[in-house]
Amino acid sequence: MSSLHITGIEGLPEITPGADLAAVILAAAEGTGVPLADGDVLVVTSKIVSKAEGRTVELAEIEPSPFAREWSAKWDKDPAIVEIVLREAKRIVRQLGPILITETYHGFVCANSGVDQSSSGAHGRAVLLPVDPDASARRIREGLRAAGLDVAVIISDTFGRAWREGQTDIAIGIAGMQPILSYIGQVDPHGHEFLVQALCTADELAAAAELVKGNVSRVPVALVRGHAWEPDDTATIAPVLRDQSKDLFR
Amino acid sequence: MSSLHITGIEGLPEITPGADLAAVILAAAEGTGVPLADGDVLVVTSKIVSKAEGRTVELAEIEPSPFAREWSAKWDKDPAIVEIVLREAKRIVRQLGPILITETYHGFVCANSGVDQSSSGAHGRAVLLPVDPDASARRIREGLRAAGLDVAVIISDTFGRAWREGQTDIAIGIAGMQPILSYIGQVDPHGHEFLVQALCTADELAAAAELVKGNVSRVPVALVRGHAWEPDDTATIAPVLRDQSKDLFR
Repeated sequence: MSSLHITGIEGLPEITPGADLAAVILAAAEGTGVPLADGDVLVVTSKIVSKAEGRTVELAEIEPSPFAREWSAKWDKDPAIVEIVLREAKRIVRQLGPILITETYHGFVCANSGVDQSSSGAHGRAVLLPVDPDASARRIREGLRAAGLDVAVIISDTFGRAWREGQTDIAIGIAGMQPILSYIGQVDPHGHEFLVQALCTADELAAAAELVKGNVSRVPVALVRGHAWEPDDTATIAPVLRDQSKDLFR
Repeated sequence: MSSLHITGIEGLPEITPGADLAAVILAAAEGTGVPLADGDVLVVTSKIVSKAEGRTVELAEIEPSPFAREWSAKWDKDPAIVEIVLREAKRIVRQLGPILITETYHGFVCANSGVDQSSSGAHGRAVLLPVDPDASARRIREGLRAAGLDVAVIISDTFGRAWREGQTDIAIGIAGMQPILSYIGQVDPHGHEFLVQALCTADELAAAAELVKGNVSRVPVALVRGHAWEPDDTATIAPVLRDQSKDLFR
Protein backbone atom coordinates (compact mmCIF):
# COMPACT_ATOMS: atom_id res chain seq x y z
CA MET A 1 0.00 0.00 0.00
CA SER A 2 1.43 3.32 -1.08
CA SER A 3 0.91 6.01 1.50
CA LEU A 4 2.36 9.35 2.55
CA HIS A 5 2.30 11.08 5.86
CA ILE A 6 2.84 14.85 5.92
CA THR A 7 3.31 16.73 9.17
CA GLY A 8 3.73 20.42 9.89
CA ILE A 9 6.74 21.04 12.13
CA GLU A 10 5.63 23.42 14.85
CA GLY A 11 7.40 25.44 17.48
CA LEU A 12 10.19 26.92 15.40
CA PRO A 13 11.58 30.10 16.93
CA GLU A 14 11.61 33.40 14.99
CA ILE A 15 14.53 32.91 12.59
CA THR A 16 17.32 35.51 12.66
CA PRO A 17 20.43 35.94 10.50
CA GLY A 18 22.97 33.18 11.04
CA ALA A 19 20.44 30.67 12.42
CA ASP A 20 21.47 27.03 12.00
CA LEU A 21 18.32 25.79 10.26
CA ALA A 22 19.26 22.11 10.38
CA ALA A 23 19.66 22.27 14.16
CA VAL A 24 16.51 24.36 14.65
CA ILE A 25 14.38 22.03 12.50
CA LEU A 26 15.84 18.92 14.12
CA ALA A 27 14.86 20.20 17.56
CA ALA A 28 11.40 21.36 16.46
CA ALA A 29 10.62 18.02 14.77
CA GLU A 30 11.59 16.29 18.01
CA GLY A 31 9.31 18.69 19.87
CA THR A 32 6.43 18.09 17.41
CA GLY A 33 6.68 14.37 18.20
CA VAL A 34 7.92 13.35 14.75
CA PRO A 35 11.71 13.07 15.07
CA LEU A 36 13.34 13.08 11.62
CA ALA A 37 14.28 9.71 10.13
CA ASP A 38 16.32 8.49 7.18
CA GLY A 39 14.29 8.73 3.97
CA ASP A 40 12.20 11.71 5.04
CA VAL A 41 11.75 14.70 2.75
CA LEU A 42 11.84 18.08 4.44
CA VAL A 43 10.05 21.00 2.76
CA VAL A 44 11.28 24.35 4.05
CA THR A 45 9.54 27.64 3.23
CA SER A 46 12.04 29.98 1.55
CA LYS A 47 11.12 32.81 3.90
CA ILE A 48 12.93 31.32 6.89
CA VAL A 49 15.89 30.43 4.69
CA SER A 50 16.08 34.04 3.51
CA LYS A 51 15.91 35.28 7.09
CA ALA A 52 18.64 32.88 8.22
CA GLU A 53 20.79 34.07 5.33
CA GLY A 54 20.15 37.76 6.01
CA ARG A 55 18.29 38.26 2.72
CA THR A 56 16.16 41.08 4.03
CA VAL A 57 16.31 44.70 2.93
CA GLU A 58 15.35 47.85 4.83
CA LEU A 59 13.14 49.83 2.48
CA ALA A 60 14.38 53.13 3.92
CA GLU A 61 17.88 52.35 2.67
CA ILE A 62 16.83 51.86 -0.96
CA GLU A 63 17.37 54.60 -3.55
CA PRO A 64 14.76 53.98 -6.27
CA SER A 65 15.72 54.67 -9.88
CA PRO A 66 13.76 57.25 -11.89
CA PHE A 67 11.96 54.40 -13.69
CA ALA A 68 10.97 52.76 -10.38
CA ARG A 69 9.73 56.13 -9.09
CA GLU A 70 7.67 56.91 -12.14
CA TRP A 71 6.11 53.47 -12.44
CA SER A 72 5.34 53.31 -8.69
CA ALA A 73 3.62 56.69 -8.73
CA LYS A 74 1.50 55.60 -11.66
CA TRP A 75 0.31 52.40 -9.96
CA ASP A 76 0.34 53.46 -6.33
CA LYS A 77 3.17 51.16 -5.33
CA ASP A 78 6.09 51.57 -2.92
CA PRO A 79 9.01 52.79 -5.08
CA ALA A 80 11.54 51.07 -2.81
CA ILE A 81 9.80 47.71 -3.32
CA VAL A 82 9.64 48.25 -7.08
CA GLU A 83 13.35 49.11 -7.11
CA ILE A 84 14.17 45.86 -5.26
CA VAL A 85 11.94 43.84 -7.60
CA LEU A 86 13.79 45.25 -10.61
CA ARG A 87 17.22 44.62 -9.05
CA GLU A 88 16.27 40.97 -8.46
CA ALA A 89 15.07 40.55 -12.06
CA LYS A 90 16.99 39.31 -15.08
CA ARG A 91 14.13 40.43 -17.33
CA ILE A 92 10.56 41.67 -17.20
CA VAL A 93 8.36 38.92 -18.68
CA ARG A 94 5.05 40.81 -18.55
CA GLN A 95 4.15 44.26 -17.32
CA LEU A 96 0.51 45.23 -17.42
CA GLY A 97 -1.05 47.80 -15.15
CA PRO A 98 0.32 47.27 -11.64
CA ILE A 99 1.35 43.68 -12.39
CA LEU A 100 5.01 42.89 -12.81
CA ILE A 101 5.93 39.33 -13.84
CA THR A 102 9.68 38.94 -13.92
CA GLU A 103 12.31 36.30 -14.45
CA THR A 104 14.64 36.37 -11.46
CA TYR A 105 18.38 36.04 -11.95
CA HIS A 106 17.92 32.41 -10.77
CA GLY A 107 15.57 31.76 -13.71
CA PHE A 108 12.25 31.66 -11.81
CA VAL A 109 9.31 33.32 -13.55
CA CYS A 110 7.06 34.87 -10.90
CA ALA A 111 5.33 38.01 -9.70
CA ASN A 112 7.59 40.75 -8.29
CA SER A 113 10.78 38.66 -8.47
CA GLY A 114 9.59 36.73 -5.43
CA VAL A 115 10.12 39.79 -3.21
CA ASP A 116 7.80 39.61 -0.22
CA GLN A 117 6.66 42.19 2.27
CA SER A 118 4.60 39.82 4.44
CA SER A 119 6.18 37.73 7.21
CA SER A 120 9.25 39.95 7.03
CA GLY A 121 9.42 40.35 10.79
CA ALA A 122 8.88 44.11 10.56
CA HIS A 123 7.12 46.70 8.49
CA GLY A 124 9.39 48.64 6.16
CA ARG A 125 11.38 45.54 5.36
CA ALA A 126 11.25 43.17 2.40
CA VAL A 127 12.38 39.56 2.15
CA LEU A 128 14.22 38.47 -1.01
CA LEU A 129 14.56 34.92 -2.31
CA PRO A 130 17.71 33.09 -1.17
CA VAL A 131 20.71 33.83 -3.43
CA ASP A 132 21.18 30.14 -4.30
CA PRO A 133 18.28 28.00 -3.01
CA ASP A 134 20.00 24.75 -4.05
CA ALA A 135 22.97 25.69 -1.87
CA SER A 136 20.56 26.56 0.95
CA ALA A 137 18.94 23.11 0.63
CA ARG A 138 22.35 21.44 0.55
CA ARG A 139 23.42 23.22 3.73
CA ILE A 140 20.36 21.92 5.57
CA ARG A 141 20.87 18.41 4.16
CA GLU A 142 24.54 18.52 5.19
CA GLY A 143 23.62 19.72 8.67
CA LEU A 144 21.21 16.82 9.06
CA ARG A 145 23.76 14.38 7.64
CA ALA A 146 26.19 15.55 10.32
CA ALA A 147 23.51 14.46 12.82
CA GLY A 148 23.48 11.03 11.16
CA LEU A 149 20.37 11.54 9.01
CA ASP A 150 19.81 11.00 5.27
CA VAL A 151 17.03 13.48 4.47
CA ALA A 152 16.18 15.17 1.15
CA VAL A 153 15.47 18.89 1.36
CA ILE A 154 13.23 21.11 -0.77
CA ILE A 155 13.10 24.90 -0.45
CA SER A 156 9.59 26.06 -1.41
CA ASP A 157 7.88 29.31 -2.25
CA THR A 158 4.32 30.37 -3.16
CA PHE A 159 4.06 31.30 -6.86
CA GLY A 160 1.26 32.19 -9.24
CA ARG A 161 0.80 30.40 -12.55
CA ALA A 162 -0.26 31.15 -16.10
CA TRP A 163 -3.91 30.41 -16.96
CA ARG A 164 -5.00 29.40 -13.46
CA GLU A 165 -6.11 31.48 -10.48
CA GLY A 166 -4.82 30.74 -7.01
CA GLN A 167 -1.20 30.22 -6.12
CA THR A 168 0.53 26.97 -5.21
CA ASP A 169 3.76 26.17 -3.45
CA ILE A 170 6.54 25.04 -5.76
CA ALA A 171 10.18 24.03 -5.32
CA ILE A 172 12.88 26.67 -5.81
CA GLY A 173 15.79 24.64 -4.44
CA ILE A 174 16.53 20.98 -3.78
CA ALA A 175 19.18 18.71 -2.28
CA GLY A 176 19.58 14.96 -2.16
CA MET A 177 17.01 13.91 -4.78
CA GLN A 178 16.27 14.78 -8.40
CA PRO A 179 13.26 17.10 -8.83
CA ILE A 180 11.80 15.34 -11.89
CA LEU A 181 10.74 11.70 -12.18
CA SER A 182 10.60 10.58 -15.79
CA TYR A 183 8.33 7.83 -17.03
CA ILE A 184 9.61 8.20 -20.60
CA GLY A 185 10.34 4.76 -22.07
CA GLN A 186 8.36 2.96 -19.36
CA VAL A 187 5.28 0.98 -20.29
CA ASP A 188 1.78 1.36 -18.84
CA PRO A 189 -0.40 -1.59 -17.75
CA HIS A 190 -1.77 -1.80 -21.32
CA GLY A 191 1.65 -2.02 -22.96
CA HIS A 192 1.58 1.57 -24.19
CA GLU A 193 4.94 3.33 -23.93
CA PHE A 194 5.05 6.74 -22.24
CA LEU A 195 6.53 9.23 -24.70
CA VAL A 196 6.44 12.51 -22.84
CA GLN A 197 5.49 11.94 -19.24
CA ALA A 198 7.90 13.32 -16.64
CA LEU A 199 6.47 14.38 -13.31
CA CYS A 200 7.91 17.26 -11.32
CA THR A 201 7.68 15.48 -7.99
CA ALA A 202 9.59 18.30 -6.27
CA ASP A 203 6.76 20.71 -7.07
CA GLU A 204 4.18 18.12 -6.01
CA LEU A 205 5.97 17.62 -2.69
CA ALA A 206 6.11 21.40 -2.15
CA ALA A 207 2.37 21.66 -2.93
CA ALA A 208 1.54 18.79 -0.58
CA ALA A 209 3.60 20.41 2.18
CA GLU A 210 1.74 23.73 1.84
CA LEU A 211 -1.47 21.96 2.84
CA VAL A 212 -0.11 21.39 6.35
CA LYS A 213 1.97 24.55 6.61
CA GLY A 214 -0.59 27.18 5.79
CA ASN A 215 0.43 30.77 5.28
CA VAL A 216 -1.05 32.44 8.31
CA SER A 217 0.04 30.10 11.07
CA ARG A 218 3.76 29.94 11.75
CA VAL A 219 4.53 26.46 10.40
CA PRO A 220 7.32 27.05 7.88
CA VAL A 221 8.53 23.44 7.64
CA ALA A 222 6.79 20.18 6.75
CA LEU A 223 8.05 16.65 6.91
CA VAL A 224 6.97 14.17 4.23
CA ARG A 225 7.32 10.53 5.20
CA GLY A 226 6.74 7.60 2.85
CA HIS A 227 7.95 9.16 -0.42
CA ALA A 228 10.52 6.90 -2.09
CA TRP A 229 13.52 8.79 -3.48
CA GLU A 230 16.92 7.86 -4.81
CA PRO A 231 19.72 9.70 -2.98
CA ASP A 232 21.60 11.92 -5.46
CA ASP A 233 23.88 14.63 -4.18
CA THR A 234 24.32 16.18 -7.62
CA ALA A 235 20.64 17.19 -7.73
CA THR A 236 19.66 20.82 -8.34
CA ILE A 237 16.46 22.60 -9.39
CA ALA A 238 17.99 23.40 -12.81
CA PRO A 239 16.16 20.62 -14.75
CA VAL A 240 12.84 22.23 -13.74
CA LEU A 241 13.69 25.64 -15.19
CA ARG A 242 12.62 25.51 -18.83
CA ASP A 243 15.16 27.05 -21.11
CA GLN A 244 13.88 30.25 -22.67
CA SER A 245 14.53 28.87 -26.14
CA LYS A 246 12.02 26.06 -25.46
CA ASP A 247 9.48 28.23 -23.66
CA LEU A 248 6.37 29.29 -25.56
CA PHE A 249 5.22 31.65 -22.82
CA ARG A 250 8.13 33.96 -22.11
CA MET B 1 -0.43 19.19 15.12
CA SER B 2 -1.43 19.59 11.49
CA SER B 3 -0.95 16.40 9.55
CA LEU B 4 -2.20 14.73 6.38
CA HIS B 5 -2.35 11.10 5.45
CA ILE B 6 -2.55 10.23 1.77
CA THR B 7 -3.23 6.68 0.63
CA GLY B 8 -3.39 5.16 -2.83
CA ILE B 9 -6.57 3.12 -3.28
CA GLU B 10 -5.58 -0.18 -4.83
CA GLY B 11 -7.42 -3.04 -6.40
CA LEU B 12 -9.81 -1.11 -8.64
CA PRO B 13 -11.06 -3.21 -11.54
CA GLU B 14 -10.58 -2.09 -15.16
CA ILE B 15 -13.25 0.61 -15.55
CA THR B 16 -15.78 0.18 -18.37
CA PRO B 17 -18.59 2.45 -19.62
CA GLY B 18 -21.40 2.80 -17.11
CA ALA B 19 -19.29 1.80 -14.10
CA ASP B 20 -20.58 3.18 -10.78
CA LEU B 21 -17.39 4.86 -9.61
CA ALA B 22 -18.65 5.70 -6.12
CA ALA B 23 -19.46 2.03 -5.49
CA VAL B 24 -16.22 0.78 -7.04
CA ILE B 25 -14.08 3.23 -5.02
CA LEU B 26 -15.98 2.51 -1.81
CA ALA B 27 -15.30 -1.21 -2.18
CA ALA B 28 -11.65 -0.73 -3.16
CA ALA B 29 -10.99 1.61 -0.21
CA GLU B 30 -12.47 -1.03 2.07
CA GLY B 31 -10.19 -3.60 0.43
CA THR B 32 -7.13 -1.34 0.80
CA GLY B 33 -7.79 -1.22 4.53
CA VAL B 34 -8.73 2.48 4.61
CA PRO B 35 -12.54 2.59 4.52
CA LEU B 36 -13.76 6.08 3.58
CA ALA B 37 -14.83 8.38 6.39
CA ASP B 38 -16.63 11.72 6.68
CA GLY B 39 -14.25 14.58 5.95
CA ASP B 40 -12.01 12.67 3.55
CA VAL B 41 -11.03 14.13 0.19
CA LEU B 42 -11.01 11.71 -2.71
CA VAL B 43 -8.77 12.49 -5.70
CA VAL B 44 -9.84 10.56 -8.80
CA THR B 45 -7.75 10.44 -11.98
CA SER B 46 -9.80 11.75 -14.90
CA LYS B 47 -8.89 8.73 -17.01
CA ILE B 48 -11.15 6.35 -15.10
CA VAL B 49 -13.93 8.95 -15.06
CA SER B 50 -13.66 9.26 -18.85
CA LYS B 51 -13.78 5.49 -19.23
CA ALA B 52 -16.83 5.20 -16.97
CA GLU B 53 -18.51 7.93 -19.02
CA GLY B 54 -17.63 6.34 -22.35
CA ARG B 55 -15.38 9.26 -23.34
CA THR B 56 -13.15 7.09 -25.56
CA VAL B 57 -12.85 7.32 -29.32
CA GLU B 58 -11.84 4.67 -31.83
CA LEU B 59 -9.21 6.29 -34.05
CA ALA B 60 -10.32 4.22 -37.06
CA GLU B 61 -13.70 5.94 -36.98
CA ILE B 62 -12.29 9.47 -37.20
CA GLU B 63 -12.27 11.37 -40.50
CA PRO B 64 -9.46 13.95 -40.21
CA SER B 65 -9.94 17.36 -41.79
CA PRO B 66 -7.54 18.52 -44.52
CA PHE B 67 -5.81 20.77 -41.95
CA ALA B 68 -5.36 17.86 -39.52
CA ARG B 69 -3.96 15.69 -42.36
CA GLU B 70 -1.52 18.29 -43.57
CA TRP B 71 -0.26 19.26 -40.14
CA SER B 72 0.07 15.60 -39.04
CA ALA B 73 2.06 14.69 -42.14
CA LYS B 74 4.43 17.58 -41.49
CA TRP B 75 5.10 16.60 -37.88
CA ASP B 76 4.75 12.82 -38.10
CA LYS B 77 1.63 12.64 -35.97
CA ASP B 78 -1.48 10.48 -36.16
CA PRO B 79 -4.03 12.56 -38.15
CA ALA B 80 -6.94 11.00 -36.24
CA ILE B 81 -5.45 12.11 -32.92
CA VAL B 82 -4.81 15.61 -34.26
CA GLU B 83 -8.40 15.78 -35.50
CA ILE B 84 -9.71 14.82 -32.04
CA VAL B 85 -7.42 17.36 -30.37
CA LEU B 86 -8.78 20.12 -32.62
CA ARG B 87 -12.40 19.07 -32.04
CA GLU B 88 -11.86 19.27 -28.26
CA ALA B 89 -10.31 22.74 -28.52
CA LYS B 90 -11.96 26.13 -28.21
CA ARG B 91 -8.80 27.78 -29.46
CA ILE B 92 -5.16 27.04 -30.23
CA VAL B 93 -3.06 28.92 -27.67
CA ARG B 94 0.38 28.04 -29.10
CA GLN B 95 1.42 25.98 -32.06
CA LEU B 96 5.13 25.53 -32.61
CA GLY B 97 6.62 22.58 -34.43
CA PRO B 98 4.84 19.44 -33.27
CA ILE B 99 3.59 21.10 -30.08
CA LEU B 100 -0.07 22.02 -29.83
CA ILE B 101 -1.16 23.92 -26.72
CA THR B 102 -4.91 24.43 -26.77
CA GLU B 103 -7.68 25.78 -24.63
CA THR B 104 -10.33 23.09 -24.29
CA TYR B 105 -14.00 23.95 -24.50
CA HIS B 106 -14.00 23.64 -20.67
CA GLY B 107 -11.40 26.43 -20.43
CA PHE B 108 -8.34 24.31 -19.53
CA VAL B 109 -5.08 25.34 -21.21
CA CYS B 110 -3.02 22.22 -21.85
CA ALA B 111 -1.16 20.17 -24.44
CA ASN B 112 -3.31 18.37 -27.02
CA SER B 113 -6.64 19.32 -25.39
CA GLY B 114 -5.97 16.69 -22.73
CA VAL B 115 -6.48 13.89 -25.26
CA ASP B 116 -4.55 10.82 -24.16
CA GLN B 117 -3.47 7.72 -25.97
CA SER B 118 -1.88 5.98 -23.00
CA SER B 119 -3.92 3.93 -20.52
CA SER B 120 -6.76 3.83 -23.03
CA GLY B 121 -7.31 0.11 -22.61
CA ALA B 122 -6.40 -0.57 -26.22
CA HIS B 123 -4.17 0.70 -28.99
CA GLY B 124 -5.98 2.67 -31.66
CA ARG B 125 -8.18 4.35 -29.06
CA ALA B 126 -7.94 7.76 -27.39
CA VAL B 127 -9.35 8.95 -24.09
CA LEU B 128 -10.91 12.44 -23.94
CA LEU B 129 -11.42 14.54 -20.83
CA PRO B 130 -14.82 14.17 -19.16
CA VAL B 131 -17.46 16.44 -20.72
CA ASP B 132 -18.15 18.18 -17.39
CA PRO B 133 -15.63 17.18 -14.72
CA ASP B 134 -17.51 19.11 -11.99
CA ALA B 135 -20.61 17.03 -12.75
CA SER B 136 -18.47 13.88 -12.68
CA ALA B 137 -17.14 14.86 -9.24
CA ARG B 138 -20.66 15.64 -8.02
CA ARG B 139 -21.93 12.24 -9.16
CA ILE B 140 -19.22 10.49 -7.14
CA ARG B 141 -19.88 12.73 -4.12
CA GLU B 142 -23.62 12.01 -4.40
CA GLY B 143 -22.99 8.27 -4.69
CA LEU B 144 -20.93 8.37 -1.52
CA ARG B 145 -23.50 10.54 0.23
CA ALA B 146 -26.11 7.90 -0.57
CA ALA B 147 -23.84 5.49 1.33
CA GLY B 148 -23.93 7.90 4.29
CA LEU B 149 -20.57 9.59 3.67
CA ASP B 150 -19.63 13.29 3.42
CA VAL B 151 -16.58 13.24 1.16
CA ALA B 152 -15.19 15.98 -1.12
CA VAL B 153 -14.17 14.84 -4.60
CA ILE B 154 -11.51 16.17 -6.97
CA ILE B 155 -11.08 14.96 -10.55
CA SER B 156 -7.40 15.30 -11.49
CA ASP B 157 -5.30 15.20 -14.63
CA THR B 158 -1.61 15.52 -15.46
CA PHE B 159 -0.84 18.86 -17.16
CA GLY B 160 2.28 20.71 -18.22
CA ARG B 161 2.96 24.29 -17.18
CA ALA B 162 4.49 27.46 -18.58
CA TRP B 163 8.15 28.14 -17.65
CA ARG B 164 8.71 24.89 -15.74
CA GLU B 165 9.66 21.42 -16.98
CA GLY B 166 7.92 18.33 -15.67
CA GLN B 167 4.18 17.93 -15.35
CA THR B 168 2.09 17.95 -12.20
CA ASP B 169 -1.38 16.73 -11.39
CA ILE B 170 -3.97 19.48 -11.13
CA ALA B 171 -7.72 19.61 -10.46
CA ILE B 172 -10.11 19.72 -13.44
CA GLY B 173 -13.31 19.13 -11.48
CA ILE B 174 -14.44 19.41 -7.89
CA ALA B 175 -17.45 18.73 -5.68
CA GLY B 176 -18.21 19.55 -2.06
CA MET B 177 -15.45 22.08 -1.34
CA GLN B 178 -14.23 25.32 -2.89
CA PRO B 179 -10.99 24.91 -4.89
CA ILE B 180 -9.35 28.16 -3.70
CA LEU B 181 -8.60 29.19 -0.13
CA SER B 182 -8.15 32.93 0.18
CA TYR B 183 -6.01 34.59 2.83
CA ILE B 184 -6.84 38.05 1.54
CA GLY B 185 -7.71 40.33 4.45
CA GLN B 186 -6.22 37.94 7.01
CA VAL B 187 -3.23 39.01 9.07
CA ASP B 188 0.10 37.21 9.39
CA PRO B 189 1.90 36.63 12.74
CA HIS B 190 3.63 40.01 12.29
CA GLY B 191 0.41 41.96 11.79
CA HIS B 192 0.92 42.32 8.06
CA GLU B 193 -2.27 41.98 6.02
CA PHE B 194 -2.27 39.58 3.07
CA LEU B 195 -3.21 41.51 -0.05
CA VAL B 196 -3.04 38.92 -2.79
CA GLN B 197 -2.57 35.48 -1.34
CA ALA B 198 -5.14 32.88 -2.37
CA LEU B 199 -4.01 29.29 -2.49
CA CYS B 200 -5.37 26.80 -5.00
CA THR B 201 -5.70 23.98 -2.50
CA ALA B 202 -7.54 21.83 -5.06
CA ASP B 203 -4.43 21.78 -7.25
CA GLU B 204 -2.23 21.14 -4.22
CA LEU B 205 -4.42 18.19 -3.19
CA ALA B 206 -4.28 16.81 -6.74
CA ALA B 207 -0.49 17.16 -6.75
CA ALA B 208 -0.18 15.49 -3.36
CA ALA B 209 -2.38 12.61 -4.54
CA GLU B 210 -0.21 12.01 -7.62
CA LEU B 211 2.69 11.16 -5.32
CA VAL B 212 0.90 8.01 -4.15
CA LYS B 213 -0.93 7.21 -7.39
CA GLY B 214 1.94 7.16 -9.83
CA ASN B 215 1.33 6.91 -13.54
CA VAL B 216 2.62 3.44 -14.32
CA SER B 217 1.01 1.45 -11.53
CA ARG B 218 -2.77 1.15 -11.64
CA VAL B 219 -3.69 3.34 -8.66
CA PRO B 220 -6.13 5.89 -10.10
CA VAL B 221 -7.62 7.06 -6.80
CA ALA B 222 -6.09 8.53 -3.65
CA LEU B 223 -7.66 9.33 -0.34
CA VAL B 224 -6.52 12.39 1.59
CA ARG B 225 -7.32 12.34 5.28
CA GLY B 226 -6.74 15.25 7.65
CA HIS B 227 -7.41 18.15 5.29
CA ALA B 228 -9.97 20.54 6.81
CA TRP B 229 -12.62 21.72 4.33
CA GLU B 230 -15.90 23.52 4.54
CA PRO B 231 -18.73 21.58 2.86
CA ASP B 232 -20.09 23.62 -0.08
CA ASP B 233 -22.26 21.95 -2.68
CA THR B 234 -22.15 24.96 -4.98
CA ALA B 235 -18.42 24.50 -5.57
CA THR B 236 -17.04 24.15 -9.10
CA ILE B 237 -13.59 24.47 -10.69
CA ALA B 238 -14.65 27.72 -12.41
CA PRO B 239 -12.87 30.09 -9.95
CA VAL B 240 -9.56 28.44 -10.91
CA LEU B 241 -9.92 29.13 -14.63
CA ARG B 242 -8.47 32.58 -15.20
CA ASP B 243 -10.59 34.64 -17.49
CA GLN B 244 -8.86 35.27 -20.79
CA SER B 245 -9.23 39.02 -20.32
CA LYS B 246 -7.07 38.81 -17.18
CA ASP B 247 -4.57 36.31 -18.57
CA LEU B 248 -1.20 37.65 -19.64
CA PHE B 249 -0.15 34.35 -21.21
CA ARG B 250 -2.90 33.38 -23.59
